[in-house]
Amino acid sequence: MKVAVLGYGTVGLGVYEMLKTAKGLEPGPVLVRPGKDDAPFKVTSIEAIVNDPEVGAAAEVMGGVEPAFSYAAAVLSAGKHLVTSNKALVAARGIELAEIAREHGAAFLFSAACGGGVPFLHHLSLARESDEILSLGGILNGTTNYMLDAIQRLGLEYEQALKDAQRLGYAEADPTADVSGLDALRKIMLACAVAWGRLPREGLLNEGIASVTAADAAHFMARGYTCRLMARGGKTGDGIYAYVEPVLLREGAAECSVLENYNMARYEGACAGPIILMGQGAGRWPTASAVLRDLGCILLGHREMLPACCAEVPADNGGVSHLYYVRLPAHRAAALPCESAESAGGVARLVTKPMSVAAMHAFAAKIRAEGGEIFFAALEQ
Amino acid sequence: MKVAVLGYGTVGLGVYEMLKTAKGLEPGPVLVRPGKDDAPFKVTSIEAIVNDPEVGAAAEVMGGVEPAFSYAAAVLSAGKHLVTSNKALVAARGIELAEIAREHGAAFLFSAACGGGVPFLHHLSLARESDEILSLGGILNGTTNYMLDAIQRLGLEYEQALKDAQRLGYAEADPTADVSGLDALRKIMLACAVAWGRLPREGLLNEGIASVTAADAAHFMARGYTCRLMARGGKTGDGIYAYVEPVLLREGAAECSVLENYNMARYEGACAGPIILMGQGAGRWPTASAVLRDLGCILLGHREMLPACCAEVPADNGGVSHLYYVRLPAHRAAALPCESAESAGGVARLVTKPMSVAAMHAFAAKIRAEGGEIFFAALEQ
Repeated sequence: MKVAVLGYGTVGLGVYEMLKTAKGLEPGPVLVRPGKDDAPFKVTSIEAIVNDPEVGAAAEVMGGVEPAFSYAAAVLSAGKHLVTSNKALVAARGIELAEIAREHGAAFLFSAACGGGVPFLHHLSLARESDEILSLGGILNGTTNYMLDAIQRLGLEYEQALKDAQRLGYAEADPTADVSGLDALRKIMLACAVAWGRLPREGLLNEGIASVTAADAAHFMARGYTCRLMARGGKTGDGIYAYVEPVLLREGAAECSVLENYNMARYEGACAGPIILMGQGAGRWPTASAVLRDLGCILLGHREMLPACCAEVPADNGGVSHLYYVRLPAHRAAALPCESAESAGGVARLVTKPMSVAAMHAFAAKIRAEGGEIFFAALEQ
Repeated sequence: MKVAVLGYGTVGLGVYEMLKTAKGLEPGPVLVRPGKDDAPFKVTSIEAIVNDPEVGAAAEVMGGVEPAFSYAAAVLSAGKHLVTSNKALVAARGIELAEIAREHGAAFLFSAACGGGVPFLHHLSLARESDEILSLGGILNGTTNYMLDAIQRLGLEYEQALKDAQRLGYAEADPTADVSGLDALRKIMLACAVAWGRLPREGLLNEGIASVTAADAAHFMARGYTCRLMARGGKTGDGIYAYVEPVLLREGAAECSVLENYNMARYEGACAGPIILMGQGAGRWPTASAVLRDLGCILLGHREMLPACCAEVPADNGGVSHLYYVRLPAHRAAALPCESAESAGGVARLVTKPMSVAAMHAFAAKIRAEGGEIFFAALEQ
């Protein structure tokens, strides 16, 4: 099957190269920006791909919602299969693309959009057919994992960790989507949609890592904890919860062995029990390998990753509770239900009694609106 | 698709129950021993299944090579798909079964035969199509992991750890296949066959855990190491290495977070990088979930897990080297190339210079032939 590549950046080049040796696949035309068509295999209009009868599938690796959505819709409407690594696209308009694909008998797969080389969405899409998926989540952003690891193992301050991540190519010039937890949130949205056919949309909560300091790290590490930015999704009665926040884990937890820019995804099946998948969550070759794996699955007969019934639902983060570790202005400590606390120099560090995720995130927003500084992380028991 | 179940033991019952709710699947007749057919859905002859036009596939979960092979061959020869959890069967006669399946247009999948609920073989079979698999392995036997964990974390002696494992149903009354490393060896044979189309047969090496004592554990744990029984396979020039042996890992390695009877499989892809998969490696529901996953893959179009070219090859374990930690009679310590050593009460504990796997296993066999006691484990750097 000849595969067109939409985009020729970091991942696009990797996909193009891997297509040269993959079994049953070969590289087709590559869509680039006007003026960048400096080789015969490069084209500048999506029509050249859509109208090419030899092209059986396209790999969209451009990023962003537009023009990626229009291109993807055109490819699928022509009955050609589509694979994408673009989480923003699938989170924003994946349900529409799945419907277009279904109408035209084309495949629409996107495991590279969550976890890079880690086969998380692929696996969820298989497991849901015979097992009940109870919960899912993990470390889904390699940039922030690299930074947290550097802050904790090397004792770096946040700003230095960010600079190092940028120098190594792990963080973008504008790192907002990563450090705010938005990137991980998009990924957990996709995982919920694949596992349960419900894409959580409103009421999502994401607390990133921008508030963590070397002093925080020294404090919780001295107590035997390691911090990871975790995305979590699950069922709560009739609803779906989906949120991202820092979590403190006890030494020896599998998450603590996830170093540098690695990812770890996990789900709990009613029958399978906990299944954990680790690997490189980003980068040219790991992400390209996930795109190629999806293309191989299309050759085998796979067609859909989102179940046919998939619908948007509001997230319900009021029904999940944790203990939280919180650092905040000492004069505001009394506002939290407190298990234990210590205070020095106007700063309190405390462990709360169980609080809902919604309540904790709302409280942090309030402190910040007052001009106060707060760091919080769920305590894994 | 109606699925017959061959065997109604621990896993068989799980498969039968899961078939009742799995999408696109339903339970068919269950093959039991004569005299055990105490319900209408149970049959006692394989012909009743082979000749049932409604049966589209069978799940073989009996264990053992015969009559499992004859039954599996009969099912495949009738053009019905076959899924099995039986590693002894696939290691002994999997290549023949794959050929029969191919001749008759039937599927032959066996991911439940390696790693229980962990989707290792499934994943290798996808990854090999577009990526080069460089090496693979992991903790593939839950019984011995449970025992090693109990010896190390609870300070139990080997015999007590074995009794506990038997009481909990993790170890069989005759635990030889588990504690000798043979069970893990069969699994790594299958993984090599799936990844490279080469089933290593002669020259395989398996050192189990029967030689480890609480004193050994105290000694290497004081030096910051945790012991796991690891199976390893890889390419060495033109050959394939495949062996099982205890390995000492530094604190913080992902393997150290594998507790109780869990499994961890890993492979290194040239493009994907290291991919690690963890979960429950045995038990009714995890193993049944892997059988059901394979059946779901058949619905999607999967047909083969062993590549068409798969052939038996001798294993080449002479070209892989490690440092080894060794406890042996003090008077024999000089026979090893030694990096550091200590000796007390006639017993020496030493770390060797790099030695080939073949040389270390041969040396241990020699010491035992002399009536000496030896424990060894590769040192992970």
